[in-house]
Amino acid sequence: MAIIVQKFGGTSVGDINRIKNVATIVKREVDAGNQVVVVVSAMSGKTNELVGWAESLSPLQSDEALKEYDSVISSGEQVTSGLLALALQSSGIKARSWLGWQVGLETCAMHGKARIKDIKADLLKSSLEKGEVAVIAGFQGVTEDNRITTLGRGGSDTSAVAIAAAIKADRCDIYTDVDGIYTTDPRIVPKARKLNKIAYEEMLELASLGAKVLQIRSVEMAMKHKVRVQVLSSFADTPGSLLVDEEEVVERRLITGVAYSRNETQITLTKVLDKPGVAAEIFAPLTEKEINVDMIVQNISEDGTTDMTFTIPKADTDMAVSALEKAKDSLGYKTMKVDRNVAKISVVGVGMRSHAGLAQKMFQTLAEKNINILVISTSEIKISVLVAEEYTELAVRALHTAYGLDAKE
Amino acid sequence: MAIIVQKFGGTSVGDINRIKNVATIVKREVDAGNQVVVVVSAMSGKTNELVGWAESLSPLQSDEALKEYDSVISSGEQVTSGLLALALQSSGIKARSWLGWQVGLETCAMHGKARIKDIKADLLKSSLEKGEVAVIAGFQGVTEDNRITTLGRGGSDTSAVAIAAAIKADRCDIYTDVDGIYTTDPRIVPKARKLNKIAYEEMLELASLGAKVLQIRSVEMAMKHKVRVQVLSSFADTPGSLLVDEEEVVERRLITGVAYSRNETQITLTKVLDKPGVAAEIFAPLTEKEINVDMIVQNISEDGTTDMTFTIPKADTDMAVSALEKAKDSLGYKTMKVDRNVAKISVVGVGMRSHAGLAQKMFQTLAEKNINILVISTSEIKISVLVAEEYTELAVRALHTAYGLDAKE
Repeated sequence: MAIIVQKFGGTSVGDINRIKNVATIVKREVDAGNQVVVVVSAMSGKTNELVGWAESLSPLQSDEALKEYDSVISSGEQVTSGLLALALQSSGIKARSWLGWQVGLETCAMHGKARIKDIKADLLKSSLEKGEVAVIAGFQGVTEDNRITTLGRGGSDTSAVAIAAAIKADRCDIYTDVDGIYTTDPRIVPKARKLNKIAYEEMLELASLGAKVLQIRSVEMAMKHKVRVQVLSSFADTPGSLLVDEEEVVERRLITGVAYSRNETQITLTKVLDKPGVAAEIFAPLTEKEINVDMIVQNISEDGTTDMTFTIPKADTDMAVSALEKAKDSLGYKTMKVDRNVAKISVVGVGMRSHAGLAQKMFQTLAEKNINILVISTSEIKISVLVAEEYTELAVRALHTAYGLDAKE
Repeated sequence: MAIIVQKFGGTSVGDINRIKNVATIVKREVDAGNQVVVVVSAMSGKTNELVGWAESLSPLQSDEALKEYDSVISSGEQVTSGLLALALQSSGIKARSWLGWQVGLETCAMHGKARIKDIKADLLKSSLEKGEVAVIAGFQGVTEDNRITTLGRGGSDTSAVAIAAAIKADRCDIYTDVDGIYTTDPRIVPKARKLNKIAYEEMLELASLGAKVLQIRSVEMAMKHKVRVQVLSSFADTPGSLLVDEEEVVERRLITGVAYSRNETQITLTKVLDKPGVAAEIFAPLTEKEINVDMIVQNISEDGTTDMTFTIPKADTDMAVSALEKAKDSLGYKTMKVDRNVAKISVVGVGMRSHAGLAQKMFQTLAEKNINILVISTSEIKISVLVAEEYTELAVRALHTAYGLDAKE
């Protein structure tokens, strides 16, 4: 008998019929003789509605406001967990719902994006041993002070993986509206292939690069606790993609996937005085506003000044520009160039650790298509380049082919 | 400094603008220097939507199903309590929401219609002493087992009165969409008058007779704990009606109000064998189905048999008829007559205790209008008669005038 955690997103529980469909999927695992824990999101659209109401009443800046925000928006998962428990009971399955505070899912008090501190697995374990399916409201926890917290957007994935780790589940199935992890976005590259297995580290890079299938924190947590996570569709009865340790990815390949993100803005400050500590000085006003600086390039200095180029999330552009303008005198740059029409293209694969020449292939492939590279950054298993946004699809397709990722006809 | 509990119903918190309006009303009490506890219902329509979803998944008959039902439908008050706390914070008022389990509102485990066992007033008291407005989600509590319960329809009134009793509030203001308790239904009698004060006992009779302003249990609880309850409108800034002890009703009057209920069915069993215990035998199958038998008349026996007439709630008619048909042989009646077209008209007033002749005036008034009385029943402070439903308005109007309740021009 295995212990299986199943997580269903907002689309999968979007209405009563879909909740019944989920009950059927859960029943399959129960009938197979497994102990089953289900984690649910709110009905799709519901969280946005609740957030909209909260925002219309408050700027949601104070800690006190965020406590109320969490109490309000956590209600969406409360509804779906109870409804799914009812649907399961009606299918003849013993089931009960658990809210974050009921199941002892303790978090820190950082409301709106709390982190899980502890899960009291005993309650859950004894419920499973009684033969009950546990239906847990995802996305929510509780502080020491008995206040409800939420885990940030996509937090239900994190709930599911954390619970799977706490009860040492054999597998954590994340049901969603796509049927797995692909070598790249199939909307852009019809020849994209579904990956049977993918290493945690690769998924981490892909998730942070714009492949929106799993919340990054849930992947980090899965990697840390070695939780076998499967991403699969709740609308198609086919196996999905399994997140595993690097050694387990038997399929030999150098590059696993090509990712892209249009959510970038490139900023260049020209004629910055080239002295020790200047980078720290430039990024201080951005750090203060919690703006995440990503790719950074500092040109070679010639006349004692340098040009500094970096990227930030597109949504933070106005805030960043205003912060840098305010600091213009103290930073002493000459001009600021802002380009919102850029995209980051990345190739990812654990094969990079052992194979040279993979970056060269990327630069060459893009050069052949006359795509100019604006910025380059690399990590152990990833190479990212910044290009003009209009080349996004062309670049992704060319790289997908060049690295031999295209599906066979 | 007084302690005030304010309760707002579903219409009063029906959308964001109305929630802002409620915040203004609450602010008035805070600015007056009072400690304020607010109890809220769900947005109007929300509970029905949630109930509809639950019912579409389950017959909601088992205890396990009712536990899920409670978890689902209690989410409506969770939303409004958080939103009102946000609205108050945005008006510069310190405020926080409390759910049933957070505020220690303990109930029995009768899910769907739980009764309050205890309220841990300490938490609430210390919050008030910190100068916070406490916004409590009405209608909900928690069992010893940490499962959410609900208190039955209209349960937020009960929450408010119970909390007022627990913290020894000076007043419990029930804000609703009517501006007080009237001598009768103003839709039928335009000359109905708003009562400034009304005795608990009178309100209890009026509430159970079809005046739907307050949940009966909340009135019982107010009477038991001597909570001064005021019923008033959240849309008009005028004083409402105050529920008080009988001695406090200074306004001298014999009859306080005229109530009616169309929710009745009259059943007559003819030629029932007139022997000791026959009534108990007849009502046993109804009691078994939890059908509430109200007015009962047993005719004088002539030939060793008797006719038995009684009323039941109209909604239970089919169930009652089928139960009585099944028991026909053992009960030994000849025919069953069922009349759904009846109404119960009642006059209520603590003045009855000390004044004779009030019943006679009722019979005479109805006789003058040629209204036939089918059944009569009386209590210490109430006389009820059953009449053909078509006479409802005429009877109510005539009695309202006869007892001197009409407003002066």
